[in-house]
Order: sequence, then structure tokens, then C-alpha cells
Amino acid sequence: MTDPDIEIPESHPRYESLLTRHRIEAGVDAGITSRQGLIAQGRGEAFDYLLGERTLPAADAAERAAAAHLLLADHPVLSVNGNVAALVPGEVVDLAAATSADIEVNLFNRTDERMERIADHLREHGASEVKGLTADGRIPGLDHERAKVDADGIGDADVVLVPLEDGDRAEALGDLGKVEIVIDLNPMSRSARAADVPIVDNVIRAVPGITEHARDLADADRETLESIVAEFDAGEALTAAERAIREGGDEDGGDAT
Amino acid sequence: MTDPDIEIPESHPRYESLLTRHRIEAGVDAGITSRQGLIAQGRGEAFDYLLGERTLPAADAAERAAAAHLLLADHPVLSVNGNVAALVPGEVVDLAAATSADIEVNLFNRTDERMERIADHLREHGASEVKGLTADGRIPGLDHERAKVDADGIGDADVVLVPLEDGDRAEALGDLGKVEIVIDLNPMSRSARAADVPIVDNVIRAVPGITEHARDLADADRETLESIVAEFDAGEALTAAERAIREGGDEDGGDAT
Repeated sequence: MTDPDIEIPESHPRYESLLTRHRIEAGVDAGITSRQGLIAQGRGEAFDYLLGERTLPAADAAERAAAAHLLLADHPVLSVNGNVAALVPGEVVDLAAATSADIEVNLFNRTDERMERIADHLREHGASEVKGLTADGRIPGLDHERAKVDADGIGDADVVLVPLEDGDRAEALGDLGKVEIVIDLNPMSRSARAADVPIVDNVIRAVPGITEHARDLADADRETLESIVAEFDAGEALTAAERAIREGGDEDGGDAT
Repeated sequence: MTDPDIEIPESHPRYESLLTRHRIEAGVDAGITSRQGLIAQGRGEAFDYLLGERTLPAADAAERAAAAHLLLADHPVLSVNGNVAALVPGEVVDLAAATSADIEVNLFNRTDERMERIADHLREHGASEVKGLTADGRIPGLDHERAKVDADGIGDADVVLVPLEDGDRAEALGDLGKVEIVIDLNPMSRSARAADVPIVDNVIRAVPGITEHARDLADADRETLESIVAEFDAGEALTAAERAIREGGDEDGGDAT
């Protein structure tokens, strides 16, 4: 959909890129995007540029597997950091609604002020409940501030979506035995490699992509969802993405030259 | 050399990366690194990661050609923006001394306050004269603010080093018939493609690299310098860098597999 906040038609060839830049700038103004978040945004831009700024078929398959995992879950939670809140606040709320998931704010550089601002920003975009402020649970293996989660949120979840997550956190969450879905444009990152479902795609495309699959699968039976999950191969998805970045070609090997 | 400002030994495997991060953070605190500069820093990190965080032989050859151009020049000028000032202030002063070049501040997002802060920062790192504040010259083909240069600086230069330059500015400078040396970690960027000498290397390695070659060539005769310049092939340098990024291998094709 066209963003009402910026005066650029969706048909503009650089619409997505301009929208992203606009939202990140607004995130800085709102005090929810950090310095590290801006640098991370730049790293993502470079990888997306090399991917051709498109959702690879392998990433679309990962988004479908992610949707199936979230629909099968007893307690799915969507983790939100500063960049995710800035880039896809309404899209996260839509995904939570489509999969009956909780939304929990989790920051690498946690301050009460940023936590509150991000929770407010999500509520302004339609979130009814935002977790993460209680912080009465801990992820083992991380230092105190990084370890904080809500006991009845990520602490209790069986499936967690962590877009743009730090490598240490992604690995520690993976060690907890939860199903971990990561969105990361660098297929060589520790976060992507730690994930059960690594989605190598721009978060601005990936989150609506998962939602679309979740809506499509809303009436599917468990058997169908379980077969989608079983057929997904994380290693293949990472290999396809790395090949697309390195070779700049079609990740299915469709180019015969 | 080990930076006196940070308590990390130069032998640390992540020394260069930590030093870079430290200097960028300090640049934000000092009001000389912009939001766009932080995002650009992230893009550079991603490309440097894919290059293996090393100076390719082709980049070293480009740095030697850049040194020869600067030494042959009647009036060489080193252009400095916010990220360059934050990342390599002392190194730019060293290069200016080794090549008798002027230093000129040129900002994509020009404000008098940032111009003054950057000039002050360079003076604190040993610069005796910093140009760019007069702004009585114009680069044709750019809008008013972007076009500003000093008439007796970049306006009068025959060789210009523009590290981390915007694509529009790099192309407009190239159209002026000046010899343009660009430092850019993205070999596919318009800036790199517009350059007579594109150096695809981290500015934190490239600027000291040029200085080292300039000192090595200090007593060389014009014939030697001119043959170094003549033998350099910009297209080959870009191809080698793109191959290294895309294939992740040795850009000289040394790997037989």
C-alpha cells in the first residue's frame, strides 16, 4: 500500500527505497532508531542492493514456512527492536493479528525511555498489547541487560520471530529450544545461521510477505502446515541467498550462461 | 599505528573494525558525522565484509597510481566530508603533507556549523590550512548547495581525491576534466565508475596506503610517475574488486578451483 506519510506514488521505481529512508529518518526523530540502528540499516541496504532489491524464491519459501510455524505455534511471539518498529510498525501489527502472536519489544541497547517510545509507536500503529516492559524473564547465556525478556512473552513462547537480531541474542534464543525465525539480509551472519527459518529478505518486504502467507494458510489443516514446515530446508535457503549475492544471478540457476 | 584514544591493542583481531566504530561514534558526538553518514558507514561495512576486510592487490595498485597522480599534479586537493573527517583526520593531514596537497571540506549536506566543526577537527589533527569555507566557486551541473567549492581549492585543482563521494558530485567533478581519484567500497557505484582512479578499499586503509606510496615515490622522476599512471587501468581495478565481492575469492584468480 502507498504510505500516507510520504508524497511518493507507489509506482515510483525507488518507492520502497525512499519509503525505507523516510521511515528510518522518522524513527531517529521519534527517538526509536539508534546510531547502531542507522549503521545496521546501511549494512542491510548494501546486501539488498547485491540481492537486486527483490524477494528471492528461496526467501518467499522461507516466509511461507515462517507463516506455517507461527500458525502451528501454541504461543508465537514477534520480537521488535528499534529498526523494526521504525520500518514496519503497522506491518508487525498486521502479522500479529494474522497469526494470533504477541508483540514484545526487545532492544540490544535497552533504555526505559526507548522501550516506552517503541511501545507507544506500536500502539499508534494499532497494537493493543505490547510486551517487553515487565522484563521478569531472562535468556540464559547473555549478560544482564541483553538477557531481559517477559516471562509470559518470549520467555514462554514456542515460536519466536526475531527480525534484525544481534548474533549473540539469536544464538542464545536458538539454544533455548524455541523455533527461531530470523529476518536478516546477510546470509552469512550468525543470526541467519542460528535460525530454524532464516529469511534473507528486506524486513519491509518480508513481514508483509509472511502475513500474506499466513492469511493464505488461515484455513489449512495441521497436516498441510506441518508438511510446509518439514519441506523447508534452512541450509538450502542460506546457500541460495549467498549464491544470489555473490554471483548476482538467479538463485535457481535459471541463467544457462 | 595504535590510536591513543581507544584502549584496544593494535594486535586485536577486530582492531580496525573497533577503531572505525569508535571514530564514527566520536564523529557523531562531535557533530561532524550525519545520519546519512552513519547509514553510509553501514553500507561500507557490508562491502568491506564481502571483500574480506583487506586491501586487494588491485586496490594497492590504485593507491600507487593515486600517489603518482597527486605527486605529478600542479595543484592537488583532498576533499573531506563528515565521515572522512571522523574516520581519518590525521591520515588526511599526513597525505596532504606527503603530496603538498590542499585540504578542502566539502559536504553533501552543507551547513555552516558542520563545515566549521569539521575544519576545527582537521586543525586539531594538525591541518594548517583548511579550505571550503569561502565557497566562491561552483561545480557546473549541480544544484546550488551541492555545487559550492573554493575557487582557489577544488575550483583550481587539476587532481582531486574525493573519498566517499556522492555519485552526482563524483560525476559532475569528472565532467570538469580534472583527474578524479575516488575511494569507495562499492565498485558498482556511480562514484567509482566516474573516477579516473577508483580505489575500492576501506578509507581507513586506503588513505594511509596512498601516503605510503607517496613517500616511497617522493624522489621518483616524472617519467617513473607517468609510467605508473599510464599502466593503471580503472576498468580492470573495478572488475577485480567486483569479482572479489561476488566470488569471495582471490581477485587475481590465484585459486585454481
